[in-house]
Amino acid sequence: MRISRLFSKTQKKSPKDEESKNARFLEQAGFISKSAAGIYSFLPLGLRVLNKIENIVREEMNTVGGIEILMPALHPKESWEATGRWASFGALFKTKSNFGGEYALGPTHEEILYQLLKRHISSYRDLPVYIYQIQTKFRDEPRAKSGLLRTKEFRMKDFYSFHTDDKDRDAYYEVIKKAYAKIFQKLGLNAIPTTAGGGTFSELSMEFQVLCEAGEDIIFLCKKCNLAVNKEIVSSKTSKCKNCGGATIEKKAIEVGNIFPLKEHFAKSVNLIFKDAAGKEKLVSAGCYGLGTSRVMGAIAEVMSDDRGLIWQEAVAPASVHLIAVPGGAEVKKSAEKLYDGLIAKGAEVLYDDRDTATAGEKFADADLIGIPLRAVVSEKTLEKNSVELKKRSENKTVLIKINDLNSMLHAS
Amino acid sequence: MRISRLFSKTQKKSPKDEESKNARFLEQAGFISKSAAGIYSFLPLGLRVLNKIENIVREEMNTVGGIEILMPALHPKESWEATGRWASFGALFKTKSNFGGEYALGPTHEEILYQLLKRHISSYRDLPVYIYQIQTKFRDEPRAKSGLLRTKEFRMKDFYSFHTDDKDRDAYYEVIKKAYAKIFQKLGLNAIPTTAGGGTFSELSMEFQVLCEAGEDIIFLCKKCNLAVNKEIVSSKTSKCKNCGGATIEKKAIEVGNIFPLKEHFAKSVNLIFKDAAGKEKLVSAGCYGLGTSRVMGAIAEVMSDDRGLIWQEAVAPASVHLIAVPGGAEVKKSAEKLYDGLIAKGAEVLYDDRDTATAGEKFADADLIGIPLRAVVSEKTLEKNSVELKKRSENKTVLIKINDLNSMLHAS
Repeated sequence: MRISRLFSKTQKKSPKDEESKNARFLEQAGFISKSAAGIYSFLPLGLRVLNKIENIVREEMNTVGGIEILMPALHPKESWEATGRWASFGALFKTKSNFGGEYALGPTHEEILYQLLKRHISSYRDLPVYIYQIQTKFRDEPRAKSGLLRTKEFRMKDFYSFHTDDKDRDAYYEVIKKAYAKIFQKLGLNAIPTTAGGGTFSELSMEFQVLCEAGEDIIFLCKKCNLAVNKEIVSSKTSKCKNCGGATIEKKAIEVGNIFPLKEHFAKSVNLIFKDAAGKEKLVSAGCYGLGTSRVMGAIAEVMSDDRGLIWQEAVAPASVHLIAVPGGAEVKKSAEKLYDGLIAKGAEVLYDDRDTATAGEKFADADLIGIPLRAVVSEKTLEKNSVELKKRSENKTVLIKINDLNSMLHAS
Repeated sequence: MRISRLFSKTQKKSPKDEESKNARFLEQAGFISKSAAGIYSFLPLGLRVLNKIENIVREEMNTVGGIEILMPALHPKESWEATGRWASFGALFKTKSNFGGEYALGPTHEEILYQLLKRHISSYRDLPVYIYQIQTKFRDEPRAKSGLLRTKEFRMKDFYSFHTDDKDRDAYYEVIKKAYAKIFQKLGLNAIPTTAGGGTFSELSMEFQVLCEAGEDIIFLCKKCNLAVNKEIVSSKTSKCKNCGGATIEKKAIEVGNIFPLKEHFAKSVNLIFKDAAGKEKLVSAGCYGLGTSRVMGAIAEVMSDDRGLIWQEAVAPASVHLIAVPGGAEVKKSAEKLYDGLIAKGAEVLYDDRDTATAGEKFADADLIGIPLRAVVSEKTLEKNSVELKKRSENKTVLIKINDLNSMLHAS
């Protein structure tokens, strides 16, 4: 990517009226653009990050047998009435056709998926099934704020598993728990498994919480055994750890994932049944496993940044290298162009600041703001030694490396 | 993919109340599932086809310099009022927040993109820019029918180019025309460039039309010079070809793409201006290039099928090979499993009918219905010769090929 071809410029100042770091930095660095409160576009750099996050999630969901589908955003009113949620689901956006028919804009997809499965599941031989999608969802948030952390329209992976009995479902719940741990590890996020309330569907659910002052959740974390519990289900502030009796600390956190058993709840509403081996009709038992991919992007921006800007880890960075041609000499530009072309030809992901209109200072500031893991600078000084100057975004020291060695180094990394 | 793990079964009978072939076959074969008129889920096989179509489109859009972004589906009422389309755009779905604010569900994205560009474009140096997205769109269709050909919610690629002047825009229009030709060629669709009316934005636009009885458009096609013109802009039925004076024939067709100059239309409404080299303020001149990816899937199903089912071309098929283990012997199952594992390990895309519950006849019928380009059958008879029986979906003849040769053949193809 050439910065001269990216229309999404960095802004000199961070947007007004934004308190959270992710909203300020992501917008200032040109990753996202706000159309209204809680409604964002993903610009070229932002879409790259989102795609990388979603592909990491996709890969692990496939590994545990998940089958990907894509369900609609428009949900017929009738299907939400069948589960009783047309009236009870507070944050539901609704729309009407001019030609008859009302629809909910899907914030979750049990209503669609259960109806769909009624056509495909009839016998115990059809179970278990593991189905997921990665999709845009809608929620009429009263307080859409904090950038990508709480929005009216967001990206989400929702995974549903369907089983012949609770035992099979509980066993699969453990498989998903491990898959989530792997996902967050790959994303470079310390997401703490946290016991939480399960609303109407189950006594207990598990949330994945990232400690962060911008978070809206409060969790109690045991200093001794690391057990984490959402404040929602803690009876008093001074309670000790339920597990080991140790002292707990109160922390703000961002919920980036949530897994819980749906049990037979929706199966009962819509009569999703199967015949067991003896021919007896039974309700299908289900689990639901959510992960907010755009919120993860916001959480990463929130916890991995400094006062100069964002600091992406390799796995989710919009590019591996931020190449800067220090303005001035034609020789520098020529060498930088050649280097860029060579790196691209080898399949490296390079953001190349090829602008003739920006000063060296502006280019360095933009590199810090955008936060690509590695910065490579070509200047007259470095060319004297046939080299480029390398610097990790997360460190301060710079090193000179021969241009010829950069290709192989990037390939090896 | 193992058919035993796909929850999306084929149905014995095609759905009632569906006239178009794509609706019948795609639903019967388990590619899509209807939630309501014009609202579909893409099931595992269907999502694969959709992804392949969208990746072919993406590749060509990147080749002509397109920069991918992702804009929201919720559009603030204010932005649609600014262009005058909140009231005038008939097929607009609208929704309201319980906390204030009204939104359109985006059927097209000029309203969002122009506001976005106002923050990023100020000088002639910022132009041209080429921006696209591949996204779910909404349209309150009065007659949502014909499967994926006309839906209330659909997938679309929309590409917008912004230029300093009409000459630059017109030159780029030709680049896009060529890119579209390449896309449809890769998709295996004969999409005829057709002169059409441009509504309020331009005198002329170009549509890409696939001849098909299920289509809702009518075009006049010159038998002599192949010039195609949409009936909308033809004054009388008996008119001869404008180009060569030859006789024309009237044909039904499916519009799968549409490219047209927006000129300064929206730039004027929202004051999207830039300063030219002399410092003078000018309106940005734009072009818009749409391609309905889910409709393309419907069109392919419509024109490439026979009475037994779908016939996918390799480039968009949900898999390359449909492997069938003829039920019966344990040796057959064992060999088929081994063959499947070997092909998957080599990166081949295989749909494997591993069901123990289906008869050979059911498996063959499903293979014809699903329409994967190549069918490979393992039976006791083929195993006697260490072979599998191969048959192209589009042909009737079968050939025996040594199991050891199948791997390399699939790799070479």
